[in-house]
Amino acid sequence: MIKVGIIGSTGYAGAEIAKIIKNHPEAEVVWYGSRSYEGEKFSSIYKNFYELVDDDCLGDDIEKLADEVDVIFTATPQGLCSQIVNEDILKKVKIVDLSADFRIKDVNTYEKWYGLKHGSPEFIEEAVYGLCEVNRDKVKNARLVANPGCYTSCSILSIYPLAKEGLIDAKSIIVDAKSGTSGAGRGAKVANLFCEVNENIKAYGVTTHRHTPEIEEQLGYAAGEDVVINFTPHLVPMQRGILVTAYANLTKDVTYDEVKKIYDKYYKDEKFIRVLDKDVCPETRWVSGSNYVDVNFKIDERTGRIVIMGALDNLFKGAAGQAVQNMNILFGLPEDMGIDLIPGVL
Amino acid sequence: MIKVGIIGSTGYAGAEIAKIIKNHPEAEVVWYGSRSYEGEKFSSIYKNFYELVDDDCLGDDIEKLADEVDVIFTATPQGLCSQIVNEDILKKVKIVDLSADFRIKDVNTYEKWYGLKHGSPEFIEEAVYGLCEVNRDKVKNARLVANPGCYTSCSILSIYPLAKEGLIDAKSIIVDAKSGTSGAGRGAKVANLFCEVNENIKAYGVTTHRHTPEIEEQLGYAAGEDVVINFTPHLVPMQRGILVTAYANLTKDVTYDEVKKIYDKYYKDEKFIRVLDKDVCPETRWVSGSNYVDVNFKIDERTGRIVIMGALDNLFKGAAGQAVQNMNILFGLPEDMGIDLIPGVL
Amino acid sequence: MIKVGIIGSTGYAGAEIAKIIKNHPEAEVVWYGSRSYEGEKFSSIYKNFYELVDDDCLGDDIEKLADEVDVIFTATPQGLCSQIVNEDILKKVKIVDLSADFRIKDVNTYEKWYGLKHGSPEFIEEAVYGLCEVNRDKVKNARLVANPGCYTSCSILSIYPLAKEGLIDAKSIIVDAKSGTSGAGRGAKVANLFCEVNENIKAYGVTTHRHTPEIEEQLGYAAGEDVVINFTPHLVPMQRGILVTAYANLTKDVTYDEVKKIYDKYYKDEKFIRVLDKDVCPETRWVSGSNYVDVNFKIDERTGRIVIMGALDNLFKGAAGQAVQNMNILFGLPEDMGIDLIPGVL
Amino acid sequence: MIKVGIIGSTGYAGAEIAKIIKNHPEAEVVWYGSRSYEGEKFSSIYKNFYELVDDDCLGDDIEKLADEVDVIFTATPQGLCSQIVNEDILKKVKIVDLSADFRIKDVNTYEKWYGLKHGSPEFIEEAVYGLCEVNRDKVKNARLVANPGCYTSCSILSIYPLAKEGLIDAKSIIVDAKSGTSGAGRGAKVANLFCEVNENIKAYGVTTHRHTPEIEEQLGYAAGEDVVINFTPHLVPMQRGILVTAYANLTKDVTYDEVKKIYDKYYKDEKFIRVLDKDVCPETRWVSGSNYVDVNFKIDERTGRIVIMGALDNLFKGAAGQAVQNMNILFGLPEDMGIDLIPGVL
Repeated sequence: MIKVGIIGSTGYAGAEIAKIIKNHPEAEVVWYGSRSYEGEKFSSIYKNFYELVDDDCLGDDIEKLADEVDVIFTATPQGLCSQIVNEDILKKVKIVDLSADFRIKDVNTYEKWYGLKHGSPEFIEEAVYGLCEVNRDKVKNARLVANPGCYTSCSILSIYPLAKEGLIDAKSIIVDAKSGTSGAGRGAKVANLFCEVNENIKAYGVTTHRHTPEIEEQLGYAAGEDVVINFTPHLVPMQRGILVTAYANLTKDVTYDEVKKIYDKYYKDEKFIRVLDKDVCPETRWVSGSNYVDVNFKIDERTGRIVIMGALDNLFKGAAGQAVQNMNILFGLPEDMGIDLIPGVL
Repeated sequence: MIKVGIIGSTGYAGAEIAKIIKNHPEAEVVWYGSRSYEGEKFSSIYKNFYELVDDDCLGDDIEKLADEVDVIFTATPQGLCSQIVNEDILKKVKIVDLSADFRIKDVNTYEKWYGLKHGSPEFIEEAVYGLCEVNRDKVKNARLVANPGCYTSCSILSIYPLAKEGLIDAKSIIVDAKSGTSGAGRGAKVANLFCEVNENIKAYGVTTHRHTPEIEEQLGYAAGEDVVINFTPHLVPMQRGILVTAYANLTKDVTYDEVKKIYDKYYKDEKFIRVLDKDVCPETRWVSGSNYVDVNFKIDERTGRIVIMGALDNLFKGAAGQAVQNMNILFGLPEDMGIDLIPGVL
Repeated sequence: MIKVGIIGSTGYAGAEIAKIIKNHPEAEVVWYGSRSYEGEKFSSIYKNFYELVDDDCLGDDIEKLADEVDVIFTATPQGLCSQIVNEDILKKVKIVDLSADFRIKDVNTYEKWYGLKHGSPEFIEEAVYGLCEVNRDKVKNARLVANPGCYTSCSILSIYPLAKEGLIDAKSIIVDAKSGTSGAGRGAKVANLFCEVNENIKAYGVTTHRHTPEIEEQLGYAAGEDVVINFTPHLVPMQRGILVTAYANLTKDVTYDEVKKIYDKYYKDEKFIRVLDKDVCPETRWVSGSNYVDVNFKIDERTGRIVIMGALDNLFKGAAGQAVQNMNILFGLPEDMGIDLIPGVL
Repeated sequence: MIKVGIIGSTGYAGAEIAKIIKNHPEAEVVWYGSRSYEGEKFSSIYKNFYELVDDDCLGDDIEKLADEVDVIFTATPQGLCSQIVNEDILKKVKIVDLSADFRIKDVNTYEKWYGLKHGSPEFIEEAVYGLCEVNRDKVKNARLVANPGCYTSCSILSIYPLAKEGLIDAKSIIVDAKSGTSGAGRGAKVANLFCEVNENIKAYGVTTHRHTPEIEEQLGYAAGEDVVINFTPHLVPMQRGILVTAYANLTKDVTYDEVKKIYDKYYKDEKFIRVLDKDVCPETRWVSGSNYVDVNFKIDERTGRIVIMGALDNLFKGAAGQAVQNMNILFGLPEDMGIDLIPGVL
């Protein structure tokens, strides 16, 4: 039984990890970390766990934690993981970091986009970017996994085959993304109140959102050249789900069948990535509560562009589900263990 | 492996059964019945099943169906099950009927409240009312299970211990219930459009709702006397969930601890019924996507009443989950098999 | 032109007053008070006012404010108005207090239910309870108007004719109320985040909600005897609207027509109270964004009870609209001036 | 008093016209046309009008209607207006058509994108495209106004100044649009049920949506050259509002101030178009229930693109409000009469 510690277990992503692990046949949470609710019963915050979890929330004493668990999930704000990680810790436990601290290889880029001083740049090199379908081989032997961002997972997986095959102009990519509100976290902010979010849609972080360089870096690896994108996130009045609509100029004339073949090449054997039937648009509801990503595309002959769409559950494949998927890989378990939920809430 | 047929598999309750059975270790759906979508791929209607279910929707030829399955779920409008059931069918398969056809023992009451002629009154007597926690022993040997209504399950389970113990005046019970919109079904009706439901709440069926006699009959069995209630359902702008707030006059002075003891007497060993801690109010979100019912109560010394609250997921414990729970009982499986999901969508 | 000051203009009720007054032909806001946003542009907080209001938010210097305006609306938490009001202020300006400070005549009752020391009990006696349709004559000459609560306005107006005519047992009244989330205010609380409110319904303040004694007192005046009620509020995932479903034992056999006549007696000439047609249930959407209250009732012969329903917009008739209605009465203007909006958002 | 007839008054746009006209000082609705509800009270369908409108719904006898009114609004599906309009009608009344029938000058383009035979191509030439801020002079003397589409109004007005001034590459424009569900109409379709729309976002009509050629044509007039765009609409779980996020390549290096100056050149004197402050993103809630359009832009030096954002209320400025604005122009009234509502529902 893998012993799991969660730092930030009362945030939305942390609680989702707790929920997934609760049903995981080979893992159990033994440390519900929560600075905000230390000493309170976890199930008094997340009452769905009433009678199911009896633990109190613990603090974030990483040394103690590292002695008690096999893997730590840090579902915390940017900056925390890079401050608490060190060689000693990494010798004892695997770390799956859900923050952005180890996602970006160029520390200057990280510090510029995040406005933070990185706490332990010496571990950036070895950290593995945990986009399972792309990097699973590297994850296997990692000590430190940088779990991808929600927008990023959706954007990269949607576009990856086209970038990899050189089918799109690397400078032409525009990613227009829409997210449910759980992506904004559980902090008590006026902007995220029901009455501020409901019956509203807005863009935010236009041209400056922090997931931009992460998408660019990963698509750049795929394309084998620098990728520069426009990325615009939007806040949608729903709880879960990310939908990405991306646009790119095609580098040559292609048919639907040719592009479909390329998507199938990369994703046919990927359980959690579903390339939809022709003309079916991904919808967030069909992947909700699951680790699935639905992708599709449409060629526009009028404009010479391809429109790419992808949908995932931001808390699941976009955070907690992928984190557990990485844990499974790290510990040699079947990759879908415990995260093989049927998608769709209704 | 239990072979399952669903009549009405593309309605919300039917699709929920399909989803539950998909993860059930001892059952599989072999007949996705759907009059509306016969011949179409089930996963083209419920796209969450894309790549997971390959079946086409079939019709409702009950004879053929009865030869191919071990249990039939009829997730259909009132009146259908009573018209298609017969002795031959019942000899071949178990039937769990999610409609109201066999819930009410007095056929006149059924016909009056539903405005329908009952199609097979000869089976009413033997049908077992499938409220598992109350009637599990009777369900075991049933051929025909009348799966309770969503409002009814929530109302009865919330009030049952008090009625059973004679703690409340049987003529004083008022049930004010609130339901998510999936309870209204998947029919194309203007009244259930997003723009008609969102940002709105209304009562409906005031003094005339069909679940009234069902609640009265079952609470009457518990109380050992006639129960006459006011029942008022409300439509709430959410997808899932029922919350019941009930009021009754206490028949004697009681303390919190005394009443708590009574609830524990009936529910302490019931996995799916959780009596919450003092002063914690049930919320639909904490049971969403699960078979759990959360109940609690508050004594009001000022008025001499007790306020009783209960919450469940109308599609799960209020329909599909309980139907599968009944199937498990019918086939001698562990009662929670396949429906042991952690509650809570966020 | 009536000069208006708002203390608490950046709360939801305060901003609603600002919006109403903006279109009021005989009044203008000259003081946008907001402790939280003092010095910031009002239209930078409520961006709907961009290019329409150029004022900065001011503080709550009541002395200065009293010199500059004709009427002050205090749209502030309980306790503030009673602390800042004094004889000097009341000699200079009219005050319409949207908090509960002056609603309850018995200061002990206020202090017990609100857990606050009252700041100026000497003004309780003269304060007029500003339920316009009931007390408009008293409001005319008031200096200090206690604007009723949202739940209270809806509950009282729905039940008032029956209480007044002695048609219902004063000890049998149960009020089950449902409110949109704007009623919870604009404070940054986790409980009011989109992800905590959406897809959920819950009761709160069961048997202890502060609006209870206010409803009891006012219905007691109508009934001419003590009224003791159960009042249960619920939080509904919508922004605006209150729906009240109330239950009471009838004191005698009455027909629909007889009761209808009684409602018409009190409300036929009331512009803002609409007694709906037989069997039509009030819905919050039909009064949204307006000062209207829709009421109706249903007699249940089976139980000897009457079910009473009422709907209003909690921010409008339940707060800001009624406050302006009171202002109109105070200043001798047509009562519907500036609040005569067509109801219904969609 | 202008006499108004509405064909399609029980659709969402038609009812919005009815609501606006109800408060219009110089117009009144004398004909509530509704094929679906002919003979029923208008206020029995839209209960917000209870006690405010007493009329029954009438049919669509255009001849009779033309004799009784000064202006007809056709808030009907595509194809109807072009079939019922004729010279006789146009001699008698002004027509403001909210469908697409007369928006596109090239009848072949119309017939191709809409899949309909145009019923009266002889009137296309004289019809004026009623985007008031662009074409008000032409509207003045029109007999037949083609009221713009909701997506189109928002897209064109957001991009217009840049196209007009040649600041963007006419072939590079991508419009990613998000709409509330009222845009899908009030037809009883499964796809628009609450349970299908809530907690979901999806793109639809990708590369084929009918508003595409309308946007291209109008922006082409502005740019003085052919414009070819990608247009992708999305369905958002909210009732009202459209947000457009558009992307285009800048044709030269420009600063924020230079672009701001261009927007101000066209919109500074436009009451209903608000160019927001630097870095403030339009949000649909701030224009909800009003005729306002909020626009803004952001230059991205990294990509050489400009990101343009616009928000309006699809039922108001995107349909009914603009239709009344056109009526005001047609009849020489102040352009903002009756539509001068303060934006923002909360």
